[in-house]
Amino acid sequence: MKRLSVIIAAMASVILLAACGNNNSSSKSNNKTSDTQLTGQADTSYYQSVIKNGHYLTSKSRGVNVQQNGNQYNLKSFENGLMDISKKQFSTSKYVFQEGQYISTSTAENWLGRKTKSNPEGMNPAGSNTKTPLYLQQMDEQDFLTQDGNSLKLSGMTIGLGINSVYYYQKEAYGATYEMKLSDAEVRAQGKRIANQVLAQLRKRKDLKNIPIVIALYKQAPDDSLVGGNFFAYSVNNANASSVSSWKNINAKNYVFPVASGQSGPSNTNDENDFSNFKTQIQNFFPNLSGVTAQAQYMNGSLTGMNINITTQFYSQTEIISFTQYLQSTAEKYLPTGVPIDISVASTTGMQSFLSRGANDRTFSFHIFNSY
Amino acid sequence: MKRLSVIIAAMASVILLAACGNNNSSSKSNNKTSDTQLTGQADTSYYQSVIKNGHYLTSKSRGVNVQQNGNQYNLKSFENGLMDISKKQFSTSKYVFQEGQYISTSTAENWLGRKTKSNPEGMNPAGSNTKTPLYLQQMDEQDFLTQDGNSLKLSGMTIGLGINSVYYYQKEAYGATYEMKLSDAEVRAQGKRIANQVLAQLRKRKDLKNIPIVIALYKQAPDDSLVGGNFFAYSVNNANASSVSSWKNINAKNYVFPVASGQSGPSNTNDENDFSNFKTQIQNFFPNLSGVTAQAQYMNGSLTGMNINITTQFYSQTEIISFTQYLQSTAEKYLPTGVPIDISVASTTGMQSFLSRGANDRTFSFHIFNSY
Repeated sequence: MKRLSVIIAAMASVILLAACGNNNSSSKSNNKTSDTQLTGQADTSYYQSVIKNGHYLTSKSRGVNVQQNGNQYNLKSFENGLMDISKKQFSTSKYVFQEGQYISTSTAENWLGRKTKSNPEGMNPAGSNTKTPLYLQQMDEQDFLTQDGNSLKLSGMTIGLGINSVYYYQKEAYGATYEMKLSDAEVRAQGKRIANQVLAQLRKRKDLKNIPIVIALYKQAPDDSLVGGNFFAYSVNNANASSVSSWKNINAKNYVFPVASGQSGPSNTNDENDFSNFKTQIQNFFPNLSGVTAQAQYMNGSLTGMNINITTQFYSQTEIISFTQYLQSTAEKYLPTGVPIDISVASTTGMQSFLSRGANDRTFSFHIFNSY
Repeated sequence: MKRLSVIIAAMASVILLAACGNNNSSSKSNNKTSDTQLTGQADTSYYQSVIKNGHYLTSKSRGVNVQQNGNQYNLKSFENGLMDISKKQFSTSKYVFQEGQYISTSTAENWLGRKTKSNPEGMNPAGSNTKTPLYLQQMDEQDFLTQDGNSLKLSGMTIGLGINSVYYYQKEAYGATYEMKLSDAEVRAQGKRIANQVLAQLRKRKDLKNIPIVIALYKQAPDDSLVGGNFFAYSVNNANASSVSSWKNINAKNYVFPVASGQSGPSNTNDENDFSNFKTQIQNFFPNLSGVTAQAQYMNGSLTGMNINITTQFYSQTEIISFTQYLQSTAEKYLPTGVPIDISVASTTGMQSFLSRGANDRTFSFHIFNSY
C-alpha cells in the first residue's frame, strides 16, 4: 500500500479508484477497474465524476437535447436545476456522479417522439403536429455510484423531463411558426403521465430494478425568454417501485430584470427596485453601457440568486479596471444580500471582468481578464 | 466632519473627494470640487480613478487607438503594460489615476500622421506610403494626480508609444496589403526619436512643464500574432526636462504556446514542455476539445505569467463542472509555479468557467458560470 500512497500523492487529486476501497485487495492494480479514475473534488458542493481509460465518460444521450432546445437558456437551467435536485437525494460526499449511461441516444430519440406503430415507446401523444402538442421536449439522465469493493456500482439515478409550456409548430414545411400555449395544469398533468411511463420503462431493465430513481419535472421557458424555465415537482421512487406514489412540489420561478412591459415581476419584494437603482447608478457612471440585465431566481417567493450581465462597447483596460472597482462598491451598496450574485462584464471581444459574491460573503470578489 | 463621515460610510468606497483633504475647509461641499469623486480602491494593486459629476472621466484620445490597431492583442497588452510601468514610478497608494485628459483626439491624430506642411507635428516621417514606413502606430496618455487641499492636481504623466515591427501598406486603394519588416535597431531608434519629439511638444504646454513625464516604448506585434507586443524601454523625465537624458531597457518577450513551426520559443526553460504535457493530458480527458493555447510572458528570460485559453464544443453543465475540477488538479500538477496563471474555458456561447492562481497561491481557485 505504501507504493500506492506515493502514486496517489503524485497524482494530486486524480485518485486511482483501486486505492479508495476499504479492503486490501486494492493492490491488484492491473485489473479492469484500475482504468477507472475519479476527477477529484475541488469543493464538496460538486460531485466527483468518472474517468475511464483517461477519458471523461460523456453522456450517451445528451446530444439529443442540444437539438431539442430552441432556447439555450432552457438547456443550462435544466442541467443545473436537475443537479440541485440530485444533491438533495444523493450526497456529494457519498456518491460519485456519472453522466447518463443507461438511456442511449436512440432510446432518447424514441421517447421524445410521438407514440406510433413504429415507435410504441414514444412519450408524446399520437396525433397531428398541428393539433396535438408535443409535451416532452428534453430529458436528462444522471447516474450516482457508490464504492463496492474495487469497483463502482450504480446506486441511484435522477431523470429530468422538460415539458413544453408553449408548443411551437408549422402548418407546412418551412412555413410560419405558430404557437400553442399550454396551461400549468396541462404541463403538470402531462409531466406526471410521462414520468410514470418513463419509470415503468426503466424498471423493465434488470440493472435499474433495485435502485432509487428520482424523477423531476421541468417547465420549459418560451423560446424568446432570456431566462430558462423551472422545475415544479419531483418524486423519489424507491427500489422496485414502477409507478410514482407521491410528488413533492417545487415552488421556483425565474425572472428577467428589468421586467418587460406586460410581464409580471416578483411580488412582495424590493429586489427589482434594488436592481433598477443599481442599473441607473452604473449607467450614469459610464456614458455608453449598452445593456444591463439580470436573471433572478426565486424559491417559495424568496430570491435565491441573481446573475447580472453587463454589455459594454469596447473599453480600454484602464476603463474596465475602474468600472469593475466601481461595480464592486455599487453592487455592495444596492444589491440584495444573503444570496449568491454573479456580475459579468462583456464586450464584443468577450468577457472583460466578473464579480461574484457567495450567499455568506460580505464583499464581492472580482477578476479582471488580462491579455499579454 | 461627523456628518461627512456618516455620508462616507453610507457611500461605501465611493469617497467624496472633499473628505480626503487634510484641512477643515472640506465642509464647503457645494464648491466645484465636490463634484469630483473617486472610484474606490478594491485592491492596492489598482489605482483609484476619477468620477466627475457622477460620470467616469474617459480618455480624450483613446478612440484613436482602437482604429489604429489591426491586432486587438496589441491594444490590451499595450494598455496593461503601460499601467505596470506607471506603477513603478507612481505608487497606487499615493496617486490617483486619470484617463489621459491633455492630448486631444485631434492632437493624437496629428501626431500619428506623417510630418507634412499642413501637419508639422506629425511624428511619422514625410515620404510616400509605399517606401517610407509609418513607425508610430498608437499612443496612450495616463495622468497621475495627488491631493492638493480640496482638489486634485496633476503630478505625473505616462506616455506610451507603440512602434511598428512590421509596416503594412497598400500600393493602391483596396489593393493587396504588403508588409515591410522593421529591424529591432530601427524600432528602437525611431521610438527614441519620437519620444524626444513628444516630450518637447508636451513641455510647450504650461500645465505640463513642471511634472515628471514617463515615456515608454512598445514594439507592436505583427497583425497575425495571437499575443500582443512588448515594451522595450522607458525613460523618467524630471520636471522641465524637454529631452530624454537616459533610457532604461525592458527585457520583455511574449510567446504563444504551442510555438508555431518556424517560430522560436523561449530558451533555457521547460515551460513550453510543461504546457505541452498539460495540454496532452486535458485533450485526452475530453474527446473533443477544439483548442488549447497559451500566452506566456517573460521578463529577463523568466516566465512572469500565463493566460491559457481552452475552447470547447458546447458541453453540458455537468461536463463543464467535471472538466473544471479536472483542470484544477491537472494544472497544479503540470504548470509552472510562482507566476500568475489564468485558465479560461469558453464555448461558442461564451465563457463557461475559469481558473486562476496568483503568483503566491498554492491552488487554483475557479468559477463556473451559471444560468437560471
